[in-house]
Amino acid sequence: MAIRWIDVSIPMKHGMTTWPGDPPFERVPEGQIAQGAGSNTSRLTLTTHTGTHVDAPWHFEEDGRRLDEIDPAVFFGDALLVDLPHVESVSAGDLGGEPLPARILFKTRNSELPVDAPFQTDYVALGRDAAERLADERVRLVGVDYLSVAPWKQDGQATHHVLLRNDVLVVEGLRLAGLTAGIYPFTVLPLPLEGADGAPCRAFVGLNHQST
Amino acid sequence: MAIRWIDVSIPMKHGMTTWPGDPPFERVPEGQIAQGAGSNTSRLTLTTHTGTHVDAPWHFEEDGRRLDEIDPAVFFGDALLVDLPHVESVSAGDLGGEPLPARILFKTRNSELPVDAPFQTDYVALGRDAAERLADERVRLVGVDYLSVAPWKQDGQATHHVLLRNDVLVVEGLRLAGLTAGIYPFTVLPLPLEGADGAPCRAFVGLNHQST
Repeated sequence: MAIRWIDVSIPMKHGMTTWPGDPPFERVPEGQIAQGAGSNTSRLTLTTHTGTHVDAPWHFEEDGRRLDEIDPAVFFGDALLVDLPHVESVSAGDLGGEPLPARILFKTRNSELPVDAPFQTDYVALGRDAAERLADERVRLVGVDYLSVAPWKQDGQATHHVLLRNDVLVVEGLRLAGLTAGIYPFTVLPLPLEGADGAPCRAFVGLNHQST
Repeated sequence: MAIRWIDVSIPMKHGMTTWPGDPPFERVPEGQIAQGAGSNTSRLTLTTHTGTHVDAPWHFEEDGRRLDEIDPAVFFGDALLVDLPHVESVSAGDLGGEPLPARILFKTRNSELPVDAPFQTDYVALGRDAAERLADERVRLVGVDYLSVAPWKQDGQATHHVLLRNDVLVVEGLRLAGLTAGIYPFTVLPLPLEGADGAPCRAFVGLNHQST
């Protein structure tokens, strides 16, 4: 049994969709062989919430854990992908009647957007009741396919607070188009930023293939 | 059988060791709850070769592959960790007489250095003959425990050229202290930088534990 790994991260490039008001992603040449340098190198400017990224509890909870205080075991293992192509908001009822596994990814119509689409305020997000059910069942990781797990300008940021207060790792900006509902190996590795509120990350979903 | 994942990445923080002449790593507050913002966020300044990172062929080969042209299968799988605590330079003879596996990590005295130590020019690196043997045997990934796979100011940068011309993925800046020689699961995920010469990454080595 071999695993084929599918990249579910947003390619980082000039013009990629970013949160309104955030500085844009930039990669500019630092050294260029074409200009006589010994090697090609680049300088990067971005934020802890650019592209596919994780939120540490401290992002919204002043006394919450920083990124490097999270047990990295949560970065590895299986995840349930829930496919909700027709919802405008994810509510507790969309989570079904079965007990929830430790890691859940939500695929919605967000995954169909181009990576450089203008920012959409009507993206699909998780309502407070969905966040409460996830926290109550001690889910450890929640992944979504837009730049926030919470609705645009949500009153009191209840979704973020409920998840982060309960030490649920939030992964935002996944690209899940083409994947069907099911359980998959899922690996997400954030940059090792010390003391940070979150970090850009790279994420892959694994497809099991019988070797021939 | 559960896997316990050990972080082998350099924590990114102010004062971390960087290549001479490179801009320093910076994480500065963008929004701060303590100052009245809705959430804590940070702006990052770094380079494609800050901390633990990968080199794409284009780093040294003007016609070489960019980071996003590399098959991500090389990010996953087993790796052989070779422990060479007493060498000043890794040569072909240090690689033993057996055929080489697809992914090899070299642990040297470099792994004992603090992450904020002043830059050392006498770090342990791979000589040209070692690079040639790795390329000849079609090794796909080589990891080292300092910021370059090649010796300081190597004539003609032979080590980089031999590896990158042969599409060997080079992982630099691993922290392998505490690990003994052997075969381990090894996952390394670089940021998804489009068209780049390399990228900061996060890397983990897995320890197999019998569940009790």
